[in-house]
Amino acid sequence: MPKKNYLLTPGPSPVPPEVLSRMAEPIIHHRTPQYQEIFKEVCEGLKFVFKTSKPVYTFTSSGTGAMESAIVNFLSPGDKVITVDAGKFGERWGKMAAAFGLDAKVIKVEYGKPIEPRQIEEALKAEPKTKAVYTTLCETSTGTAMDIKAIAAVVAKTNAILVVDAISGLGADPLDTDLWGVDIVVSGSQKGLMIPPGLGFMSVSDKAWKLVESAKLPKFYFDLKQYKKSIDKNDVPWTPAISLVIGLREALRMIKAEGSMEAVWKRYANLGEATRQAFKGIGLEIFSSRPSNAVTAVKSPASVDSEKIVKIMRDEYGVSIAEGQAEMKGKIFRIATMGYISEFDIAVGLSLIERVLDRLGYKFEFGGTIKAFQESFVKGELVNK
Amino acid sequence: MPKKNYLLTPGPSPVPPEVLSRMAEPIIHHRTPQYQEIFKEVCEGLKFVFKTSKPVYTFTSSGTGAMESAIVNFLSPGDKVITVDAGKFGERWGKMAAAFGLDAKVIKVEYGKPIEPRQIEEALKAEPKTKAVYTTLCETSTGTAMDIKAIAAVVAKTNAILVVDAISGLGADPLDTDLWGVDIVVSGSQKGLMIPPGLGFMSVSDKAWKLVESAKLPKFYFDLKQYKKSIDKNDVPWTPAISLVIGLREALRMIKAEGSMEAVWKRYANLGEATRQAFKGIGLEIFSSRPSNAVTAVKSPASVDSEKIVKIMRDEYGVSIAEGQAEMKGKIFRIATMGYISEFDIAVGLSLIERVLDRLGYKFEFGGTIKAFQESFVKGELVNK
Repeated sequence: MPKKNYLLTPGPSPVPPEVLSRMAEPIIHHRTPQYQEIFKEVCEGLKFVFKTSKPVYTFTSSGTGAMESAIVNFLSPGDKVITVDAGKFGERWGKMAAAFGLDAKVIKVEYGKPIEPRQIEEALKAEPKTKAVYTTLCETSTGTAMDIKAIAAVVAKTNAILVVDAISGLGADPLDTDLWGVDIVVSGSQKGLMIPPGLGFMSVSDKAWKLVESAKLPKFYFDLKQYKKSIDKNDVPWTPAISLVIGLREALRMIKAEGSMEAVWKRYANLGEATRQAFKGIGLEIFSSRPSNAVTAVKSPASVDSEKIVKIMRDEYGVSIAEGQAEMKGKIFRIATMGYISEFDIAVGLSLIERVLDRLGYKFEFGGTIKAFQESFVKGELVNK
Repeated sequence: MPKKNYLLTPGPSPVPPEVLSRMAEPIIHHRTPQYQEIFKEVCEGLKFVFKTSKPVYTFTSSGTGAMESAIVNFLSPGDKVITVDAGKFGERWGKMAAAFGLDAKVIKVEYGKPIEPRQIEEALKAEPKTKAVYTTLCETSTGTAMDIKAIAAVVAKTNAILVVDAISGLGADPLDTDLWGVDIVVSGSQKGLMIPPGLGFMSVSDKAWKLVESAKLPKFYFDLKQYKKSIDKNDVPWTPAISLVIGLREALRMIKAEGSMEAVWKRYANLGEATRQAFKGIGLEIFSSRPSNAVTAVKSPASVDSEKIVKIMRDEYGVSIAEGQAEMKGKIFRIATMGYISEFDIAVGLSLIERVLDRLGYKFEFGGTIKAFQESFVKGELVNK
């Protein structure tokens, strides 16, 4: 039969057909009342997902563009910052800080472990002039969720702002922006927000806005002051990615229909936990000591190259999961539980992983993943009721 | 009857249904052989349209992002540049140069006029340390095409590089990048390339590459060295706007099917000329003394506010054309002849403009635009044969 494709990667994640079909409608102009009404609804929907009463700014860029915006708008060359490097995406904050001439204290954390809030507290004490702390909600490369609530409590006591890359975690791992006092949250469109890649987002606290006036790093495309001037008119300074914004309105309606972000988070928490139990059900280990609910990183059996698992699944069966990156290559594989991925999509992935592991010589009992998955999922659903 | 929508604005321009439907297919992952094959074809197609043998780089951004890339990758703070301000988009080069701390000589040109190549020659002689000249192929705000061939001949004799914003002109106004020696061409996706906004592009000559190593302006998202490392693997450093790239493949196939860019340019030259004749046919004047074939700016009759024309056409009939910007507000209106806009789409626009002008009290003979349009178009087609 023709290959049926399933996307179980931690971004891009699948896009609902209702969203895809809206994006296929004839393009409209963006300087019109018609588009402004759409963008206004999108801005409101983003506040709902970001859990903030402040505007959320939309950039035509990947998530990395939004990360750059979270640097250039708030700092000057030589400013002291702390970046948390607990994987490939935390590492990116450090690289960016270097590219923009910041004086960065990079805290290296063992892959698969979260940073201890105490480490940030100590670093801030050691360098009281630190202007910003850059970290990650879900470190996608290791499947680890940082304890943002505790970190925010630490940073809030200082003059520094807390910047969180929530590109893959947003919508799956809890992030209560205003309540926890997270100053800047950046994200992208192709994960929990269920649309194709091409949009970046950023929320900004009052404390962070205070840094904008004195920030001397040069900028134009990502210049927040330009965006601030436009947003009250439901506009952006440069031509937006119209079709993606229209798709996003549809996706945000689907998210809002669930009632609250707390309900959404609970659903992914249950899905994430069931997924972890599934792999434990056939004797595999979860890579992270503080696992994210957006993506599960699994240690491959010692005898099995995880790259082979991923390749066979994708090329022979059309089911995409992700490999390990950098030094985790060959050793872990990652399966996403974010956005439009349902428990039954995960069941597809688990069934295929069992078949591939069997073929690659790993010994276990068929059905072991699904048994543990179902038991955990149903138990979790009961608790959530 | 329900409103039929026609988009005759100089970007976004209409997207062919074949392209829209490809973009509505289920999303695929970008780090796969399947996507790399698509992106490879896109890169080849872009070379065809840009008329260059060098790679054309694709950014997830609006055209303004590609403009920023054409600054930050080639220059250092304090570098001397020349920018040509002959309208709102040329003005943007000057604003960007200021934002990045460049020492810019801004040459102001009367709106509706092109810059004289001699003016650039003199400015380069007056300041031989000039590193780059920034200008525009089609100044969208005035409907003016600059004489890029002659400007390139002037700049080629110096150490400076020539950077052309071809965001709205690409594909309609002739631009023979390699042959004329244009060092950097930037463009966007939502005009001649017939897809929604969200992608920016840049071609780079060998002469321009020589500046990359010494350029000290900070950058990360638009860092060309990162893109250069990736492009040989048919990849980009950050997550691309997958659905737009897939749509672009389809659009590029449609463009290539016409055989040559010379054939495409001739078609738009004919369409642009016929459009200008149409307005002259009812006694109106063309705003520009060197009109672009991508967009026609027309002086509104003295008694008629052009904003009213645009508003009635859009809000009552669903046909979008563009108003004048800045000091041209109320005085001109603009109609696009780029991308997927055919001669019959223009006939729709002309028929409606006649109806609206009549309603607003302008005296002329009904059918005057269409008569002149048809006569000019058919004559032009004969010449092109």
